[in-house]
Amino acid sequence: MTYSRNTYSDLAAGSPSALGPLSDEFFLRSIVRFEDALARAAAETGAIDAAHTGELSRLFGDYGDNHLDVEEISRASAAGANPAIPIVKQLKARAKESGIDARGIHLGATSQDAVDTALVLCLRTYGAELREDAGELTAVLVNLARQHRDTPMIARTLGQQATPTTFGLIAAGWANAINAAAERLAAEILGLPVQYAGASGTMAAAGSRGLQLHDALAAELGLRSNPVVWHTDRAPLVRLAAALAKLAGQCRKVAEDVIFLSATEVGELQEASPGGSSAMPHKANPAAAVAAAGYARRAPGYAATMFASMDVQLQRGIGSWHAEWQTIRDLAAVTASAVARLHASLDGIKVNTGAMRTNLAATNGAILADSLPASVSGDEIAAALAEGRFDVLLRDHGVDPDPAVHTGRAGELTDRLLETMRSTE
Amino acid sequence: MTYSRNTYSDLAAGSPSALGPLSDEFFLRSIVRFEDALARAAAETGAIDAAHTGELSRLFGDYGDNHLDVEEISRASAAGANPAIPIVKQLKARAKESGIDARGIHLGATSQDAVDTALVLCLRTYGAELREDAGELTAVLVNLARQHRDTPMIARTLGQQATPTTFGLIAAGWANAINAAAERLAAEILGLPVQYAGASGTMAAAGSRGLQLHDALAAELGLRSNPVVWHTDRAPLVRLAAALAKLAGQCRKVAEDVIFLSATEVGELQEASPGGSSAMPHKANPAAAVAAAGYARRAPGYAATMFASMDVQLQRGIGSWHAEWQTIRDLAAVTASAVARLHASLDGIKVNTGAMRTNLAATNGAILADSLPASVSGDEIAAALAEGRFDVLLRDHGVDPDPAVHTGRAGELTDRLLETMRSTE
Amino acid sequence: MTYSRNTYSDLAAGSPSALGPLSDEFFLRSIVRFEDALARAAAETGAIDAAHTGELSRLFGDYGDNHLDVEEISRASAAGANPAIPIVKQLKARAKESGIDARGIHLGATSQDAVDTALVLCLRTYGAELREDAGELTAVLVNLARQHRDTPMIARTLGQQATPTTFGLIAAGWANAINAAAERLAAEILGLPVQYAGASGTMAAAGSRGLQLHDALAAELGLRSNPVVWHTDRAPLVRLAAALAKLAGQCRKVAEDVIFLSATEVGELQEASPGGSSAMPHKANPAAAVAAAGYARRAPGYAATMFASMDVQLQRGIGSWHAEWQTIRDLAAVTASAVARLHASLDGIKVNTGAMRTNLAATNGAILADSLPASVSGDEIAAALAEGRFDVLLRDHGVDPDPAVHTGRAGELTDRLLETMRSTE
Amino acid sequence: MTYSRNTYSDLAAGSPSALGPLSDEFFLRSIVRFEDALARAAAETGAIDAAHTGELSRLFGDYGDNHLDVEEISRASAAGANPAIPIVKQLKARAKESGIDARGIHLGATSQDAVDTALVLCLRTYGAELREDAGELTAVLVNLARQHRDTPMIARTLGQQATPTTFGLIAAGWANAINAAAERLAAEILGLPVQYAGASGTMAAAGSRGLQLHDALAAELGLRSNPVVWHTDRAPLVRLAAALAKLAGQCRKVAEDVIFLSATEVGELQEASPGGSSAMPHKANPAAAVAAAGYARRAPGYAATMFASMDVQLQRGIGSWHAEWQTIRDLAAVTASAVARLHASLDGIKVNTGAMRTNLAATNGAILADSLPASVSGDEIAAALAEGRFDVLLRDHGVDPDPAVHTGRAGELTDRLLETMRSTE
Repeated sequence: MTYSRNTYSDLAAGSPSALGPLSDEFFLRSIVRFEDALARAAAETGAIDAAHTGELSRLFGDYGDNHLDVEEISRASAAGANPAIPIVKQLKARAKESGIDARGIHLGATSQDAVDTALVLCLRTYGAELREDAGELTAVLVNLARQHRDTPMIARTLGQQATPTTFGLIAAGWANAINAAAERLAAEILGLPVQYAGASGTMAAAGSRGLQLHDALAAELGLRSNPVVWHTDRAPLVRLAAALAKLAGQCRKVAEDVIFLSATEVGELQEASPGGSSAMPHKANPAAAVAAAGYARRAPGYAATMFASMDVQLQRGIGSWHAEWQTIRDLAAVTASAVARLHASLDGIKVNTGAMRTNLAATNGAILADSLPASVSGDEIAAALAEGRFDVLLRDHGVDPDPAVHTGRAGELTDRLLETMRSTE
Repeated sequence: MTYSRNTYSDLAAGSPSALGPLSDEFFLRSIVRFEDALARAAAETGAIDAAHTGELSRLFGDYGDNHLDVEEISRASAAGANPAIPIVKQLKARAKESGIDARGIHLGATSQDAVDTALVLCLRTYGAELREDAGELTAVLVNLARQHRDTPMIARTLGQQATPTTFGLIAAGWANAINAAAERLAAEILGLPVQYAGASGTMAAAGSRGLQLHDALAAELGLRSNPVVWHTDRAPLVRLAAALAKLAGQCRKVAEDVIFLSATEVGELQEASPGGSSAMPHKANPAAAVAAAGYARRAPGYAATMFASMDVQLQRGIGSWHAEWQTIRDLAAVTASAVARLHASLDGIKVNTGAMRTNLAATNGAILADSLPASVSGDEIAAALAEGRFDVLLRDHGVDPDPAVHTGRAGELTDRLLETMRSTE
Repeated sequence: MTYSRNTYSDLAAGSPSALGPLSDEFFLRSIVRFEDALARAAAETGAIDAAHTGELSRLFGDYGDNHLDVEEISRASAAGANPAIPIVKQLKARAKESGIDARGIHLGATSQDAVDTALVLCLRTYGAELREDAGELTAVLVNLARQHRDTPMIARTLGQQATPTTFGLIAAGWANAINAAAERLAAEILGLPVQYAGASGTMAAAGSRGLQLHDALAAELGLRSNPVVWHTDRAPLVRLAAALAKLAGQCRKVAEDVIFLSATEVGELQEASPGGSSAMPHKANPAAAVAAAGYARRAPGYAATMFASMDVQLQRGIGSWHAEWQTIRDLAAVTASAVARLHASLDGIKVNTGAMRTNLAATNGAILADSLPASVSGDEIAAALAEGRFDVLLRDHGVDPDPAVHTGRAGELTDRLLETMRSTE
Repeated sequence: MTYSRNTYSDLAAGSPSALGPLSDEFFLRSIVRFEDALARAAAETGAIDAAHTGELSRLFGDYGDNHLDVEEISRASAAGANPAIPIVKQLKARAKESGIDARGIHLGATSQDAVDTALVLCLRTYGAELREDAGELTAVLVNLARQHRDTPMIARTLGQQATPTTFGLIAAGWANAINAAAERLAAEILGLPVQYAGASGTMAAAGSRGLQLHDALAAELGLRSNPVVWHTDRAPLVRLAAALAKLAGQCRKVAEDVIFLSATEVGELQEASPGGSSAMPHKANPAAAVAAAGYARRAPGYAATMFASMDVQLQRGIGSWHAEWQTIRDLAAVTASAVARLHASLDGIKVNTGAMRTNLAATNGAILADSLPASVSGDEIAAALAEGRFDVLLRDHGVDPDPAVHTGRAGELTDRLLETMRSTE
């Protein structure tokens, strides 16, 4: 019997470089990494003899590389309801076997310190990969915006043709929204703190050096040292969850726009490698955009679970904490997958400017009625449209019937969006 | 780089017999099983020559057992955004290589037929296992209710001691709630239908035999044949999601009650194998109940995602469908895990009737003030309590100061709950 | 300073007959109605002297009609965190003033009995109205299905034209989904039970007659008497929430289909009274469908809140109960509003069969490639399409190039859906 | 028939100063305020003759004060699915009647400009009130933290007594979490931008002055002018939603801690004006904390709806936009109500330091076992506990058996939290 339930989802994302750090393997190894850094911090602050750190580090390395068995630890975790307990137990047993002083292992720490910090380490590595992926996606969008700064197309509101705009402005809006969300996410990830609070959040077991150890540990791992003792204050993870769900939401918006604009009757966009069907040769399914939307749709539910898990009971959550471990990693995974599939959708996308022109002309100019002076009545407009002389009516009132000259401030707005992209959030 | 992200969560659930059918392996194999049953149904209805079914079945069996590579299919799924496409392609290629007539493969079907039916097959096998697990949990609760039908304890409302009740009534309420939810879930699972709609839901590619093929396929797989063509009507999965989230919610309620009643200051319950700590020997963490609550908390978010995925666009969801595959399986997994951990929490739980008695006496009888006639003023009550003669006041008004005789209809209600348990929903 | 925040949303729903019973006025009056019925049940079972019920009923009637001040009770509710406390207090004070024996008021009851039963009374009245509204909506859909049983149109999957179907089959699918959801909702509402459990769920304060009183109260109010004492088991409300969210979800699916099919480039549907714009005469906004989708989108979040509120702590929720009162009513409101706006969208909707024909022809027959034998290669198909002789290729292989004859089993499926509509769920 | 459904909920919040700006009245009046500011901005930028602004402002003022009928506008909104359409229509009609040039009304604007900006104006006024309320709550918490900096109490993890801490550190943690969330919320509210994008986001109807008009309008209303044209990018509202849900989540955590610490068996806290019961004189229900938790529980569902509404279709949401109006206001309302009720719970709360001491002694010193050297075996500890000589064992190893001296770095951490409170987020 097997238990994998993300393999399909992760690999079908197409470019899952960000997903490795979210795996159970990386998570459990990060607990070992926490212990390693803690031992070194303990030596730095004089809590243990620095002479021991070398053999401890070798022990941690050997355990993490050769002896950490995800399945075994997972099963052993059932008893205490967290994975740090069996890992620390095994580390101490191995130290004893090897005659190494085990006092430097898990010094003054509690399980939550190890698990929270390990989650943060997973998320930070993930964040570095994701930032790169999001950057590539943004670059594609910026190129589309620049290239089509002046390509006229029809804007659609409530599903109806409205007035002209440009594809450049639309792409610039996409770029800006994705970029701002990715930047905010990166900032939240960089702000993730170390956890080192001890059994009850007082650092009592760490002795008088508690705060120094906390700060030294943060420095060892390159993590923020503030807020201290957030075992009861889940704001860091919840802020991250919100940032992830926001990026996923922006990906969904763009993906669904691509899907609509790729509809057979619209035909303005076409993915470079659409999903096809030998039996239905006319289909050019925007499969990558569909997949992106599918991943992104799962984000709000995860975010809600994270918000609903802020009710840490007293000094340790009774379930709220346990609910976070898989939820935040799954939320991170669907967000990265949405970014990856959206990139696949947009990279090399065919922009059918001909179809854009055709669609602009579909209402015989009615989309320009907005440009007529208010003095022209609805009846006059309707009559002119019915009689096929709406272009004459437009010209009579000095309105150029070419939709392309009615894109308002689209060009300037495109420029403004691209210029200010990196300072929006 | 590895991608497993449920291994920890599934194995730490302690008794994951129900989780295997939710794996990617089972899911993808179930697509092959759909194709196998479809070929046999096609032969039955005369759509293909029955002579071919033997070699086709062997081909399907060999592929599913020996050649189905989850990772490879997952990667190949990116292009078309679903796993049925590469599986069918590989099956057809293998048929060609073996000189087998491939017309019986995927006959008249579309990817959604294979994927939806495969999900249903996963869920049905899961449901059979879960029902057994839930039955064992219910049995433990029923035993507790019977054994403690007349064990008095204090009821608590808004966190405050209220009036006496019995542990039997509380356990009967738990049993009834869990059982009713499990029964409803079982009914929803038994009602899951086959999917066989063809490219657009008209069964056009199946020729004139479409409906017969649909019904024969349902019979082959032992699935319901109604509603037909639910590719656009996700009620079957959404109803299941609601039933799962309801069972998870009931598990959470019981688990959190266990946690409160196990609190050091309350001490009325203690798990048989609590999570302990060599450093903190006084701790008897209700670790299994905590884990159960942790799993159960994740259910509402998944259910919300399922409800939000009912907006199937036209004849196939553009992301809504894709969002379901992992969500419904993860929801099923957390529900099964909550059941398993709650069972671990309650099986052999120590009921400290002494602590129940002690807590009943904690307010010196004030919990019985409700039994005094309305004519006794609040001031009189307060004075008697302050002066330590509340028992006298009670007796003066004919109220027995023994809390155990003030449990109202608890006994009858316990019986009523146990008797009607199987007919509640 | 004013506080109304639903007036806009409720009245903009257009046909809010179902919304009155969800108001605070109806809710608080229903608490009085509970007390009235309880007094009568008490007289029936001999718990109070039947001679008092007349004057008590007059007192309740006078209070409910003339003296119940929603704002005043709301403010007074802050102290005890529920509205039953001030209402019962006022009722008792008024009885005292009038020299009426107050023992029949709130006899053996607790606040949760009054509030839960009042919520149920609101929802039952709501349910009767909603069922009528949903019935009218279904009727419109059934008519569309019958009228267009054989109207060919293109099915669309993943936003792309797929193969032909009929508008009748699509409308029948809509009708069936809405109807099944409405039927299930009606069943859940009819199953809503009375609540009469007393302070701790033992009915202790009601004396030996507790269960008779419970059953008599249920009979007085025409409510189910099972499950008993569900103050700790929120399944009845959660099942209702799921049924509401399901109906809302089906409405959203239909509404969004209408919006897509009304798109300028598609033009197959047009609301009878679309939202227009004098400045943009070409717009025919499917405003009612958009509003329906807007209401329906709010349902999953409410449902998640209800699922997450199942964790009743011990014998009374510490916040979970309080969260339900507004949530279930708001969920019911958005569902009714979605039904009402969807009805407004579909009633008299213009079905542009000409546009359906045009769109069927848009790919020059490529949508029929699926009907060619597998022996015709993709290259042959592509070549024929490119050279404008695809109809010849079709005919050469015996395929009629008229899309209207390629709607598969659409007619039979339409009939089957309409016939079995009332027995689906 | 009445429709109010928030009156109860808002007024029962006890201190709803922040709720008025969330009402329908304020919302619709804010649309008029948008039009007023737009006319003035138009005059400033020369788009209309400045001579008209006086009479226009008088017209807007008269309409908003005397002629804006929420019910009437709500009903009229059904046709176009938003309230700006009937308001603008009425304003133009009144201008015509009064012979005022109507060109300055809604100049170059679309409904979404008016509605989005009006929502922002509601939220900004709300934010100013809320900030004050949150500040008062924080002040109460800071005082508790200072006053009880050195009051020892037992920390509890997983519901079990763990090791000693101080009430000061716990209160400081509460203060810090609430304060940081309130600060972030205030920052998000201050960053809310004006919306002025025109029919399709190009500002075309505003002519060449579009961007100047946009900036002048922002200045008139004191709103941010960036991002421009966020009609398709809902990040500003979604970020606000996340900040609201985070503050609500922190309130829930504190409220539930108060409820646990007020439990009869724990008795460490008691609200100054607990909800009582004449029939149950021993009850001191933490009713305000319960209500706070009840409001806060509703936040995650609303936040999920906002995240799920980011999928704006093309240039205007088809339902996603409409779903925001009530959702963001309801989310803001429950957050303010949670803050208000939590303030009522904590203001004047009785801290029972005697009960804290008693509870610290409940395990006969076992809570200090953590302080023994690792060389003392679990068996030794168990034996000493069983034989009632655990204090001797502690002293033998140089451990002071007074729990009060084992609060680790609690004092320093309290100071650090209070000092850095305003710079945490």
